[in-house]
Amino acid sequence: MGVKGKWTRIAYEKLLMRNIKRVLNHHVVSYEKLIRKRGRIYIKTEYPEETASKLTSVFGISSVSPAVQTSSKMKEILLVTVKLADAVLEKGSSFAVRCHRVGKQLYTSMEVCRDVGEQVLKKLVDRNVRVDLTNPQHTISVEVREDHAYVFLETLHGVGGFPLGSQPKIVGLLSGGVDSSVACWLTMKRGCPLIPLYLDNVPFTNEHTTARALDVAKKLFSWSIGFPRKIYVVPHGKNLQVLVDKSPKKLTCILCKRIMYRISERVAEIEKAEGVVTGEAIGEQASQTLHNLRVLNEAAVNHPIHRPLLGFDKEETEELARKIGTFQISIQKAKSCSAAPKRPATKAKLEAVKQAERKLDIEKMVDESVKAAEILTV
Amino acid sequence: MGVKGKWTRIAYEKLLMRNIKRVLNHHVVSYEKLIRKRGRIYIKTEYPEETASKLTSVFGISSVSPAVQTSSKMKEILLVTVKLADAVLEKGSSFAVRCHRVGKQLYTSMEVCRDVGEQVLKKLVDRNVRVDLTNPQHTISVEVREDHAYVFLETLHGVGGFPLGSQPKIVGLLSGGVDSSVACWLTMKRGCPLIPLYLDNVPFTNEHTTARALDVAKKLFSWSIGFPRKIYVVPHGKNLQVLVDKSPKKLTCILCKRIMYRISERVAEIEKAEGVVTGEAIGEQASQTLHNLRVLNEAAVNHPIHRPLLGFDKEETEELARKIGTFQISIQKAKSCSAAPKRPATKAKLEAVKQAERKLDIEKMVDESVKAAEILTV
Repeated sequence: MGVKGKWTRIAYEKLLMRNIKRVLNHHVVSYEKLIRKRGRIYIKTEYPEETASKLTSVFGISSVSPAVQTSSKMKEILLVTVKLADAVLEKGSSFAVRCHRVGKQLYTSMEVCRDVGEQVLKKLVDRNVRVDLTNPQHTISVEVREDHAYVFLETLHGVGGFPLGSQPKIVGLLSGGVDSSVACWLTMKRGCPLIPLYLDNVPFTNEHTTARALDVAKKLFSWSIGFPRKIYVVPHGKNLQVLVDKSPKKLTCILCKRIMYRISERVAEIEKAEGVVTGEAIGEQASQTLHNLRVLNEAAVNHPIHRPLLGFDKEETEELARKIGTFQISIQKAKSCSAAPKRPATKAKLEAVKQAERKLDIEKMVDESVKAAEILTV
Repeated sequence: MGVKGKWTRIAYEKLLMRNIKRVLNHHVVSYEKLIRKRGRIYIKTEYPEETASKLTSVFGISSVSPAVQTSSKMKEILLVTVKLADAVLEKGSSFAVRCHRVGKQLYTSMEVCRDVGEQVLKKLVDRNVRVDLTNPQHTISVEVREDHAYVFLETLHGVGGFPLGSQPKIVGLLSGGVDSSVACWLTMKRGCPLIPLYLDNVPFTNEHTTARALDVAKKLFSWSIGFPRKIYVVPHGKNLQVLVDKSPKKLTCILCKRIMYRISERVAEIEKAEGVVTGEAIGEQASQTLHNLRVLNEAAVNHPIHRPLLGFDKEETEELARKIGTFQISIQKAKSCSAAPKRPATKAKLEAVKQAERKLDIEKMVDESVKAAEILTV
C-alpha cells in the first residue's frame, strides 16, 4: 500500500490482515499463519496458488507472489531455484534472475543472480535454456529478508486501493446501471464499506430494474467479504408521480435526483456514513452538465456527494465494470425510467427548481420514503 | 463522441470543428476544408500525418485515421488500396482488409474485402505477402460513404472526452503537484474550460513551488489551444501564518483548505464558473479521509467541489500525469508546505473546526486574498 505515515501504515496492515483472513476463511482456503513484516504480509499455506488467486481481489493488496520459503543460505537458495526452474523452463526458453535483499548476508544481490543463473544453466544444459535480461520468458525472483529467502516465478497484480474499513461507511446511490455500480466500487476500493441505496421507481420502472440492482449489490458485496451485505430499497415511484403531475416536465430529472440526494442523506445519518457516492460524470447525461450538478448539489446539506466517475469516458467506465463483474448484470434488460422527459433541462435555473419544490411537500415525501424503506440482506 | 441526443451531438460536433481549426491554425498545419457528416469529421489536407498527430490530443476526438479519398467506384478503390499496400507491405508480411459501407453501392462490404485482398496478393506476388484475418501485421481499411471511399492503414487513438467549451468553466485548485494537475485535466477532458487558481503559500513554500504551478498551468493550456490561458495567483501565506499562530496545530491543513475553498468560490463567481475541481482522493493524504472531506465540504456554500480522482490509486494518477505531460514538472524539486503539522487530524470534528474559525476573521482573510490576486497569462 502506498501509505505515508508509519502509524497509518501499521493500522492499515492490521486491517488488511483481518480482511485477508475473512476472505480465505470464506473460500475455505486453509493457511497456517499470517505474518506482517516490513510492509509485507507473509502467508504460510499449503495452497499458494489458490491463496494468491483469491487475494488479488482484496482491496489494499498491490501484488501477490506464490513463493517457496527457504533459509537465506546461498546453498539452499540454489537448491530451491534450480528445482523450480527445472519444473517450469521449457526447452529453448529464456529466463532472468532478479534478487532483492534486505539484512546482512555474506553475499550481494548481484552474486545471487549470477550464481543462480549459472546453476540453472548448468543443471538444465540439455534443455538449451538461455539468459535474457531484457525480455525473458521466465523470471526467477529471489527475495532475501534477514534469515529467510523467498523464491517465486510469478507476481499477480492485486486490485490496489486501501483495506476495506480503513475509511468510514459511504451510502451509494445504486441504480444497477453501469455507472453507479462502478462508482460505488471505486469508493469501496479506497476503503469505504458500502451501504447501497436503491430508489425503486416502480411503476416508472419495473421489477426487472429492481432485480438488476439487487444482483449488482450482490456482485459488489463479493468484493467485501466479511462486511454487512445490506441494501436499502426505498420506494420512490410515488414521489416521481407527484413530480410528473405537478412540476415542469423539463425539471423532472433534476427534482427527482434532488429528492434522491435528500433520502440518501437520511440513510447516511441512520447508518453513520460520512458521504454519498453517485455515478454521475460530467456531461454523461443531459441532467449531468456541470451546470446541473451545481443545482443538484444544492439539495445536499450535510453530506458531500462524491462522484468518482466525474472525469471518466463511457468506455473507461465500461471497461472497469467488466473487470468488477457488474457489466453483464448492468446491461441486462431493465426498464429505464419512463418519467424522464425527452428533452430534460441542461441548464436548469436553481430559482425555478426551488420554486417548483415550494409547491410540493418535499419533507413529507422524503420522510415517508425513508419510513417505507426495506433493508434487505443479499 | 458518445453523445446521445441528436441536437447535443450536432452542437458538440460544431464546437469540435471550431476547436480543430484552432489547433491546426496554432500549429500552422494547413488544410483545405473540414466537413461534418454522419458523426464523422473529414479534413481535406496535404498533410494527413501531421494533422492526425495534432488531433489525437483534441478533446472529443475518439480516433483519427489519415486516409486517401477516392470515389466509391470499385475500380478506383482497387487502384488506391493496391498502391498503398505496395508502399507499406514488406516481404513475407501479413495483412487483412476491412470494409465499412454506408449508402447504396453495387457491391457489398464482403466483396470489397475479397476483391482488394485478391488484387493485393496478385500485384505483390513477388513479395510473398499473405492474408491473416486474426492477427495481421497490416490492416487495409476501406470506408465507403455514399459516393466516396476512404482508404487508410492506421487509426490513431484520440484522447476522448468532450469538446472543450461544451461545458461551463470550472475553477481548478492547482498546487502544481501530480494530483491537482491530473484532476484539472480530467475536467478539461470532459469539456470544461479551466481557470487554474494557485494559492501561494510563501513563506511556507518558496518561489520554486510557484514556478512549478505556472509551468503545470502552461502544460495544461497546451491541451486547450484557443482558450484563455490565465491563472489566478492568490497570496495565502499570510492566512496560513494566522492559522499557525492562532489555531490548533492538528487542524492547520483543514482550516487552510477551507479557506482555499472559499477563495475558489469567489473566483468562480468572478469568472462565472459553475464549480471547483480539486485533486483530493479518498485517503490519499491524512487530511483526505472521507470524514475530513465532509468537514471540508461544509465550507463550500455555492459551488460543488468536484474531485475526479476520488477513486484513483496513486499509480493510476501518476500514469495519467505522464500521459498528460505534467508528471516531470510536478515531481520537480519544490518546497512542500512547512506549515503542515506532522500529525494532522484524520477525524476533525466539524464543531472544533467551526470554533477555531470563529476566533479568526475568515471573511476578511478571504476578501484580502482575493483582492490581492494576480491574474497571469502563461
